[in-house]
Amino acid sequence: MKEIGIIGGTGYTGVELLKILKNHPEIAKISIAANSTANKGLYEVLPELVSIVDDIKIQTVEELLENNYDVIFLALPHAEAHNLVPMLLNRDTLIIDLGGDFRLSYCDDYKKWYGFEHLHQNLLDCKTYGLAEFVISYNFKLIANPGCYPTSILLAVIPIIKLMNNNIESINTVSYSGLSGAGKSLRPDLLLSEMYGNVKAYNILKHRHEIEIYQQMNKYGYNKQFSFIPHLLPVMRGIYSTTIITLKNKVNKQDIINFYKEIYKDEIFVRVRNNVPELKWVVNTNFCDIGIEVRDNVIVINSAIDNLLKGASGQAIQNMNKYFGFNQTLGLL
Amino acid sequence: MKEIGIIGGTGYTGVELLKILKNHPEIAKISIAANSTANKGLYEVLPELVSIVDDIKIQTVEELLENNYDVIFLALPHAEAHNLVPMLLNRDTLIIDLGGDFRLSYCDDYKKWYGFEHLHQNLLDCKTYGLAEFVISYNFKLIANPGCYPTSILLAVIPIIKLMNNNIESINTVSYSGLSGAGKSLRPDLLLSEMYGNVKAYNILKHRHEIEIYQQMNKYGYNKQFSFIPHLLPVMRGIYSTTIITLKNKVNKQDIINFYKEIYKDEIFVRVRNNVPELKWVVNTNFCDIGIEVRDNVIVINSAIDNLLKGASGQAIQNMNKYFGFNQTLGLL
Amino acid sequence: MKEIGIIGGTGYTGVELLKILKNHPEIAKISIAANSTANKGLYEVLPELVSIVDDIKIQTVEELLENNYDVIFLALPHAEAHNLVPMLLNRDTLIIDLGGDFRLSYCDDYKKWYGFEHLHQNLLDCKTYGLAEFVISYNFKLIANPGCYPTSILLAVIPIIKLMNNNIESINTVSYSGLSGAGKSLRPDLLLSEMYGNVKAYNILKHRHEIEIYQQMNKYGYNKQFSFIPHLLPVMRGIYSTTIITLKNKVNKQDIINFYKEIYKDEIFVRVRNNVPELKWVVNTNFCDIGIEVRDNVIVINSAIDNLLKGASGQAIQNMNKYFGFNQTLGLL
Amino acid sequence: MKEIGIIGGTGYTGVELLKILKNHPEIAKISIAANSTANKGLYEVLPELVSIVDDIKIQTVEELLENNYDVIFLALPHAEAHNLVPMLLNRDTLIIDLGGDFRLSYCDDYKKWYGFEHLHQNLLDCKTYGLAEFVISYNFKLIANPGCYPTSILLAVIPIIKLMNNNIESINTVSYSGLSGAGKSLRPDLLLSEMYGNVKAYNILKHRHEIEIYQQMNKYGYNKQFSFIPHLLPVMRGIYSTTIITLKNKVNKQDIINFYKEIYKDEIFVRVRNNVPELKWVVNTNFCDIGIEVRDNVIVINSAIDNLLKGASGQAIQNMNKYFGFNQTLGLL
Repeated sequence: MKEIGIIGGTGYTGVELLKILKNHPEIAKISIAANSTANKGLYEVLPELVSIVDDIKIQTVEELLENNYDVIFLALPHAEAHNLVPMLLNRDTLIIDLGGDFRLSYCDDYKKWYGFEHLHQNLLDCKTYGLAEFVISYNFKLIANPGCYPTSILLAVIPIIKLMNNNIESINTVSYSGLSGAGKSLRPDLLLSEMYGNVKAYNILKHRHEIEIYQQMNKYGYNKQFSFIPHLLPVMRGIYSTTIITLKNKVNKQDIINFYKEIYKDEIFVRVRNNVPELKWVVNTNFCDIGIEVRDNVIVINSAIDNLLKGASGQAIQNMNKYFGFNQTLGLL
Repeated sequence: MKEIGIIGGTGYTGVELLKILKNHPEIAKISIAANSTANKGLYEVLPELVSIVDDIKIQTVEELLENNYDVIFLALPHAEAHNLVPMLLNRDTLIIDLGGDFRLSYCDDYKKWYGFEHLHQNLLDCKTYGLAEFVISYNFKLIANPGCYPTSILLAVIPIIKLMNNNIESINTVSYSGLSGAGKSLRPDLLLSEMYGNVKAYNILKHRHEIEIYQQMNKYGYNKQFSFIPHLLPVMRGIYSTTIITLKNKVNKQDIINFYKEIYKDEIFVRVRNNVPELKWVVNTNFCDIGIEVRDNVIVINSAIDNLLKGASGQAIQNMNKYFGFNQTLGLL
Repeated sequence: MKEIGIIGGTGYTGVELLKILKNHPEIAKISIAANSTANKGLYEVLPELVSIVDDIKIQTVEELLENNYDVIFLALPHAEAHNLVPMLLNRDTLIIDLGGDFRLSYCDDYKKWYGFEHLHQNLLDCKTYGLAEFVISYNFKLIANPGCYPTSILLAVIPIIKLMNNNIESINTVSYSGLSGAGKSLRPDLLLSEMYGNVKAYNILKHRHEIEIYQQMNKYGYNKQFSFIPHLLPVMRGIYSTTIITLKNKVNKQDIINFYKEIYKDEIFVRVRNNVPELKWVVNTNFCDIGIEVRDNVIVINSAIDNLLKGASGQAIQNMNKYFGFNQTLGLL
Repeated sequence: MKEIGIIGGTGYTGVELLKILKNHPEIAKISIAANSTANKGLYEVLPELVSIVDDIKIQTVEELLENNYDVIFLALPHAEAHNLVPMLLNRDTLIIDLGGDFRLSYCDDYKKWYGFEHLHQNLLDCKTYGLAEFVISYNFKLIANPGCYPTSILLAVIPIIKLMNNNIESINTVSYSGLSGAGKSLRPDLLLSEMYGNVKAYNILKHRHEIEIYQQMNKYGYNKQFSFIPHLLPVMRGIYSTTIITLKNKVNKQDIINFYKEIYKDEIFVRVRNNVPELKWVVNTNFCDIGIEVRDNVIVINSAIDNLLKGASGQAIQNMNKYFGFNQTLGLL
């Protein structure tokens, strides 16, 4: 039975972590820290959790760190986790960071894409990038949980890169995300009155997740054109990604589908469909649904996830389960 | 041809005023002031208006007041209009206040319901309460444009009070409003992620509009129980009010409908329906749609308006039209 | 371990039953019949359930009835359950009817409110009306699961009727329901294009649930004015009811809240709040959240449920749990 | 002053035509035919139009054709206009077909993409494809009004094809459309309960609009890869298209934007933006908003229209205005 600490636990991903861990058979105790709401009861901040999670007092980060944990989940704004992690690792705790501070490969990437000075190249080198279906071994105590967009896109493209990297000429992805992806930030453009019935692209060709995706593609050998265009979708949760892959040569649709089914045959959380996936099939679940269409040398892949679960807290638990050798579905079905 | 000044012109009601006035055949010129966005072009703040409204530089209030206007519309937060109006009235300008600073009857009401000290009982006495269909004469240069909820409810209940005040035992209203009613305030509970698929009542039995409604009911003789329960509806615009009137004696449904149709027979903007109104019929219009059901001694009235038009800017223009003796529909159909 | 049959299992309530029963520790086997989709795999009809529920072949009702079950859930259109139940009861099976065929008290009620001839007064007399928190004993093999609106309203008003029936002068309820309450019917007014941003009242003072609610109120002694006005809310799921209770004499708010907390102190699924409930707190749960406001002699109660769970399938499982003496929360938290 | 007939006038596009024509200064009279609702008053079918459009009796098509009109708008299901048009052209009436029956180039295209036998190659040759900004002359009495998706995409790509066709290697478009694009069809997947919070791609690489778009691209010289993936967006109206253009060589962003601004400098309804367009800026208008991003050899163009206006009825009126030599904005601003 494991003891858990959550730092930054009252945002959208924190709530999902709490709900999952509460029903997880291997979890003994959960502690939460959030400096902005410290010393309040959890119920005051998250009234929907009454009778679901026993009342827990929210602690300051300092208070929480007076005790030891088997796992600490970090759900912090960018650049905050980055300085906390070295100290935590000294305690021999498993750290699962749901933010972006350890997802990229090089310190320089952080200056360019995130705008802060990253001082821990050694940690960037010695972390597990936790795209759960493709982690080969959990050697490190630091897991960088993938971004929500990258999860939806990498699960869709890694198989085809593995199958025929040399045949691929370009990969272009258009993604739509529900607004919970932006958290509870008080930005005027996230008001219901501003987004009701609305859509807009944003950070076109310069979203931080683009470099994260591309670096992972590189690891599997792909290094040609990749463009990523994220959009705000006027719903609460879910990501729907449409990836267009242009090949040098024609392929057969059924061959491709069969290959994807083979790759994921032991992975319960990736469902390769014979038809077009719908976002609602995955909302409130840890599934990634994938649909594939082919015409001549063009492959179109639609992939859908819940951004707060498979795209954040669900995958974090999946990583924890795999790290400890539990069944990866514990708490997630 | 009239010249118009709008103070506080870049919120939701300001945009609607601009769109209407732009197509109004009696308007020569429009100036806008908004201190928070002063010196920007209108297009920078409201990019949807490009090619609709000629570009206008947003002024400070001080700059705007260097010139004279036939009409000044005030779209300001509570308590701000209250001190500006006395000075403006000295200029012999028609003032139409879209806020709440002059809607109530007594200075004391403002301490209790709005929480500020109102110093101008003389103006509260010498203003027109602009519920356009029921204004008898536009004697004053100050028009207090009614609140959005009051407009939807008073148009539904004044006729029955006129018809049979002594027969009424109680009036209870449940209203649902789209979130634009709260303006562009950066409140966490107005985020799409917080309100998507959500509903909540708020300010139950203590909303400022309750006293506004009740004071108007009093003028027509009604002084028994009135309860008002507003709710947030997860859409951008529109108010849907459901009013339950309990009588001492039974009435006949068709008689009531006929009376309402008679009362409003010359009022194009109030449509008394033979069926149940739908919110979408009035969104983006200046109409108020009314439906009436009766069982024995209970009357249920459903009334629907666009909160930004008939509930704010549309009615403000309607009042301006009537004040100047124009056809009341100018710019509004 | 119990064996379960579901008749009419592929509508919205059927899906929820499946999801709950799949994770229920006392359920051994689930069979489903739905004549319109018989002989298909469950996955073809409900693709979102792949990997959640093992594949189940949908049977015809006749096929399903070749075997015996501990419990049969009926999720059928009105008037269909009514003729099936007598035959099923002969098999000594627990029948939980999620439709309306056994909720009312008298055969005559069905002619007037449902428009069909009900032939089984004996069953109307010998059924349990399954408002789970108020069932005294589960003596009968037939449970009439309450309607969604009645569940939200009765949980809000039964305590006050118990406390001070003689002090109550009138009860009026305005309810808003998400569109899943109408099932998957192909009605033009249920299209997203027709309801997006829309609201409308319907069946004002003549909804079938009004008589159901009133008959239950009668059992607790209340027989004065009750009016019920349901509305369509443009979201998928959830019911939000606002009940206004007028008393002869003033009451104290905290006394009322305390009484409600006392009544429900052992009932985990009813959460009496100190603040105003929000619909999202109960969506996807079996909770009913209740908030209470008082001014003088007027009480306003807001109550919120998920119409498909506490208002249908969740409460059906809760009734099953209680019938068999299980912990009532099994499968529901 | 022109007299107008509308055949198929009570769907979503018909309502928009009515609203525009009602305020159009050059229109004398409007007649409407719709066989399914013939002999009803317009108000019975479209209650929101009371007090906006004078009451009009809906006629049968036969009745409507007893009189002559200057313009007949056809808003009919596929394959229905196709047989009506030859007869109508004999009357020397301008025909504007809002359906797809005359948009493609060859009879064979209709067998392949629409599934019906088209018998009028002469009309396919002698029609104006009414993409209003690019029509050179209105020589023919038959105008095929473009599809909604094609309008949003062609306005985005024709300039770049004109500028540097030889430099383009591929064009791929992902579009999201509000559900009114599917009309009022009673399809289960268009119910609010099915689409709330949902998204899905459909007709991937085989939508009828793909061939329409590609044939128009061909006319400007482009004949390489084009892929089109339409999606259902869970809102009522609007289309948002994201087009990724891969070039052989790098280009400069500002050069491209300047070229687009030059091309459209006299076209009020196309607004080339310096920032990313939002869908809400064009909803309820006849505008097409275009935003352009460039990185090296990749251009991303976002274009947004109201599918019922610029994508259907608005553009139809724009075509009528241009045909008769009126200012193209009449009735549309």
